[in-house]
Amino acid sequence: MPARPHHDGSVLHTTAVAPALDETVILRLRIPEHFGTVADVQLRSVVDHEPRYTRAMLVGAADGWGWWEVPLLAENPVIRYRWLVVQGDGEHLWLTADGCTRQEPRDNDDFRLAAGTDIPEWSTEAVLYQLFPDRFARSVAADERELPEWAEHAEWTDTVIDRGPSIGRQFFGGDLDGITEHLDHLERLGINLLYLTPVFPARSNHRYDALSFDEVDPLLGGDEAYIRLIEAAHARGIRVMGDLTTNHSGDAHEWFTRSHLQPGTPESEFYYWLDPEQRTYVSWLGHSSLPKFNWNSSELRDRFIEGPDSVVGKWLRPPFSLDGWRIDVANMTGRYFDEDHNVDVRRTIRTTMREIEPETLLLGEYTADASPDFQGDAWHGAMTYPGFTRPVLEWLSVPGSPSSYFGIPYGTIPDRTGVDFYETHRRFTAGFPWQVRLASMNALDTHDIPRFATHAREGAVPVALGLSMTLPGIPVVWMGDEIGALGENGEDSRRPMPWDTLEDAAERIDLYARMIRLRRSNPALREGGIRWLHVSDDALAFVRETAVESALVLATRTHAVIDLEDGALTGAPERLEGPGIATGNGSGYRLTTDGISFTVWTLPGVVIPQAVLDETIEDLAPTDIAGHPGSMPGSK
Amino acid sequence: MPARPHHDGSVLHTTAVAPALDETVILRLRIPEHFGTVADVQLRSVVDHEPRYTRAMLVGAADGWGWWEVPLLAENPVIRYRWLVVQGDGEHLWLTADGCTRQEPRDNDDFRLAAGTDIPEWSTEAVLYQLFPDRFARSVAADERELPEWAEHAEWTDTVIDRGPSIGRQFFGGDLDGITEHLDHLERLGINLLYLTPVFPARSNHRYDALSFDEVDPLLGGDEAYIRLIEAAHARGIRVMGDLTTNHSGDAHEWFTRSHLQPGTPESEFYYWLDPEQRTYVSWLGHSSLPKFNWNSSELRDRFIEGPDSVVGKWLRPPFSLDGWRIDVANMTGRYFDEDHNVDVRRTIRTTMREIEPETLLLGEYTADASPDFQGDAWHGAMTYPGFTRPVLEWLSVPGSPSSYFGIPYGTIPDRTGVDFYETHRRFTAGFPWQVRLASMNALDTHDIPRFATHAREGAVPVALGLSMTLPGIPVVWMGDEIGALGENGEDSRRPMPWDTLEDAAERIDLYARMIRLRRSNPALREGGIRWLHVSDDALAFVRETAVESALVLATRTHAVIDLEDGALTGAPERLEGPGIATGNGSGYRLTTDGISFTVWTLPGVVIPQAVLDETIEDLAPTDIAGHPGSMPGSK
Repeated sequence: MPARPHHDGSVLHTTAVAPALDETVILRLRIPEHFGTVADVQLRSVVDHEPRYTRAMLVGAADGWGWWEVPLLAENPVIRYRWLVVQGDGEHLWLTADGCTRQEPRDNDDFRLAAGTDIPEWSTEAVLYQLFPDRFARSVAADERELPEWAEHAEWTDTVIDRGPSIGRQFFGGDLDGITEHLDHLERLGINLLYLTPVFPARSNHRYDALSFDEVDPLLGGDEAYIRLIEAAHARGIRVMGDLTTNHSGDAHEWFTRSHLQPGTPESEFYYWLDPEQRTYVSWLGHSSLPKFNWNSSELRDRFIEGPDSVVGKWLRPPFSLDGWRIDVANMTGRYFDEDHNVDVRRTIRTTMREIEPETLLLGEYTADASPDFQGDAWHGAMTYPGFTRPVLEWLSVPGSPSSYFGIPYGTIPDRTGVDFYETHRRFTAGFPWQVRLASMNALDTHDIPRFATHAREGAVPVALGLSMTLPGIPVVWMGDEIGALGENGEDSRRPMPWDTLEDAAERIDLYARMIRLRRSNPALREGGIRWLHVSDDALAFVRETAVESALVLATRTHAVIDLEDGALTGAPERLEGPGIATGNGSGYRLTTDGISFTVWTLPGVVIPQAVLDETIEDLAPTDIAGHPGSMPGSK
Repeated sequence: MPARPHHDGSVLHTTAVAPALDETVILRLRIPEHFGTVADVQLRSVVDHEPRYTRAMLVGAADGWGWWEVPLLAENPVIRYRWLVVQGDGEHLWLTADGCTRQEPRDNDDFRLAAGTDIPEWSTEAVLYQLFPDRFARSVAADERELPEWAEHAEWTDTVIDRGPSIGRQFFGGDLDGITEHLDHLERLGINLLYLTPVFPARSNHRYDALSFDEVDPLLGGDEAYIRLIEAAHARGIRVMGDLTTNHSGDAHEWFTRSHLQPGTPESEFYYWLDPEQRTYVSWLGHSSLPKFNWNSSELRDRFIEGPDSVVGKWLRPPFSLDGWRIDVANMTGRYFDEDHNVDVRRTIRTTMREIEPETLLLGEYTADASPDFQGDAWHGAMTYPGFTRPVLEWLSVPGSPSSYFGIPYGTIPDRTGVDFYETHRRFTAGFPWQVRLASMNALDTHDIPRFATHAREGAVPVALGLSMTLPGIPVVWMGDEIGALGENGEDSRRPMPWDTLEDAAERIDLYARMIRLRRSNPALREGGIRWLHVSDDALAFVRETAVESALVLATRTHAVIDLEDGALTGAPERLEGPGIATGNGSGYRLTTDGISFTVWTLPGVVIPQAVLDETIEDLAPTDIAGHPGSMPGSK
């Protein structure tokens, strides 16, 4: 991978990662000295949907990099931008978030500067543990609760039913006090953010079919148990997020039954009625148990998402004090036929949250290409699969393994290379503003998909886990991954935690704890920029960079010998994790591993030239060239 | 270019190119028989922003192609879709509008089915001639008009001033009767759609700084001359489009002067006032002569765009009866700081037009990546440059030529290959629904940019012209191109038409007339699908296909010998235009040319198997698989 001009939205390359609307930031482009003569560097930004060019200035040089700077005024909530480097030989190179190209890129590939966002700073430090309450742990109190009518009792060690109507009914009876009793385990892991799938009363084990948003399911211990859990978690420095279904409720929800059985009630406008006579209605993907909300209703907004007394607000306030929401099916919320209320709904949710406590996090589920909705206006980050989860599975699974996969009817898990991983990851993350990318979830698996370990190549778990901990984004541990749980599909992935045999998993737990500690203790892994050094079929290497320190990461699926370019590293690497070896190689470095492996080294921080640090917006004195062809001075 | 599965949105591959909302269409995928075993074909569509998979069925085969079909319900105004072909060996291929890939594509690359659009059918038959009234022709009446105060008189043969403050003032005095007098020239060319840049009174030669929208500039002959021109054009079967600035007016506009000098008038809310005391205001790219409209004003909407008495409406009604509008700076219209009224404004414009006359055309200027705004909800097509104008210039210009280009500060015209042309064209057209692509302008140049011919390689004009006439979209002739006019930049491109020396250009005019006739007489070139057969540095070959007939197109910039794959063509090619030779080559064909050249052959239409034609939606009995990972039957 030849050294090319580099920029990302990280703190190294901008004076403000999260500027206010109408604030001017300075953007920085680094060009390697051996790149060749540079005749001109321009920033192309898109303001009010019109391209504009602003000349950058070479302000300083250090460690083999020239630093170019240009001011950019955040005139819109999202400013798309890219770099144009005109070379001495008349050739040119565009640099977008999707990489370098000589062909004109699409606006969709641009970097994004998001202004006026309110993503809490703590999200960069978060390592998230996802937990499914029915399957995590039972307190003794659980034994005394009566099995509800819809449920089918299961013993903790029973096999999970992954076919047929019993899927949602099989009831293991985990509860909230069970979780509270096992916070030692979470603290041992080192996670600091707990995300629980829904806890509202429902008629299924997953509880995505809420029948009320007003109380915690008594089967889980009710409101009091929730408060006990949150308080105990907070006492250990662990934040807690809830899970809310804004796309639909359950068909047993009090709002729905009231409107369903009694047309004309206020709640009737909360849903989409197809045939008023038959009382048929729109539901999530045709599942009649999940009637879809109609966000035309202002009464629904009032009760559900707007203001401190709404559902969204209530659970963030004491005595609950949740630290954020993960929104289920965020992508479909408010969208139906020729209507699209999604922007309104998500912004209203966030406004309510901010009014109660700005330091709360809002994640949205968007299983496919999330970026169009994730531009910093409401969702802070995405729970999404195509940019990380799928490509890492495709790179590190045993070729040809069967899989229910993610709803994609491939038949088997595709066999893809490291190049595919890199290109797919780059393409799907390119659409996010940098801040949103840092707040998006890098999950190996979740409650909805097969577990990565199920068909992983031998030795691949540390590699995949390592990538989730070192790539930009919030690392996610889906409960059970840390003890080596398997799962062929989303249902099978929801196996109860086998607390009795936990000792058998000590090695895996230690691996997780070590990786989490590594992530949490290293500022470069939390918020550093990313620069790729090597991409091949079987190996990936990149650095996460800050001015304080950097981290070099090497992930391989077989033995590898990689010669890095001269000047690729900012200093001598010191190994923190893994078996890889870095040796001096002339003025560069050679990275070596014997087999499938994951290695992290620490490096000195990137040296920003003093002139760059001293530069002011006024000094840069930009000359804008409007991109519109008819806009030459005097032309119109 | 190996034969791969093929689909485009054309009439060959769908039962309805322009379905109604809530209508079900059948989509067709063609897979070459020698592609190998196909285990499964799925359509991935995105409904309410959620992926869904539907299995396609192999319905018939003909001419070496297997035809797969799948129904798709137009549940949203725009449905994105792509194909997944699972091969017998477990490999798979995605097919999107941006091509074939094994890596998971972004949603942005998907095909688009736009429902409920109202693009007039005549647009597919249109060949557009763009005309700048000040420079086309003078009637004798023009001599008697008094030069306005702002204007600087120019003789018809004077050099165009392309620098400094005189740019907009240099006044050649062309008028509308001058155009009417030269309709013979346009009829000789064969064009059938005339687009005039603005004709409203203004204080510049380009008239983009309108001072009223209520009358035609008396310097052009006033309303009566406009009516005479439109009636005369209509009598010859030529439609006429106007040009409207919805982003800004001139600072001499009656609305602006009223609001500027008299704060508190109704017109005051039509603009963005920055400092009420200073009366400073927002203007187009900082040009104070072009104050930007504030579309928060309902009064502005009433007067300008909404209803039959608005400006938009008035000029479409008798006695004017314009056939459409080209909207200037459509991209920035209604967009400022944190406001975005663009969707509302464009839809209101179109609603007004439709109410008066549905068979009118609405084109929007969007010089950069237009597709996000051009999804069939209002703008029918784009006046845009990155998908055709720029790549054709970059492929066929003399390398290293200087150029003011398009506001992109390259310095010189980039030297790009045929592969670059193809990939850039594909990428920038991929975002449009097929109908919108057919209604978008393929211009070699316009009044805003250098003329293609200025730095064209020797012999390149017929190639570039040929591509504009044969690629999907509306071919555009910018006045003067047909007589070999040159222009180093947008201003210089506005040279007056040299009517006295027209005979010298007979050969070029004949070339244009022949190419336009070819385009207009060939249904495949008007509305056929497009399938690329060959792409290399110096040659491009594709077919435009319908069931009635097809056209084979070969464009080269040097000599070429191209062996097409067996079965690439639907029958024996018969040459219609150009020097290329097609010879049988075993069971395939070889295309040969001696040098830079453009050739078109006609071919028999594509044979659609009878079973495919007979297939009904009910027969296809789809089985949907929701793409959401948690949506397995019974799962939620």
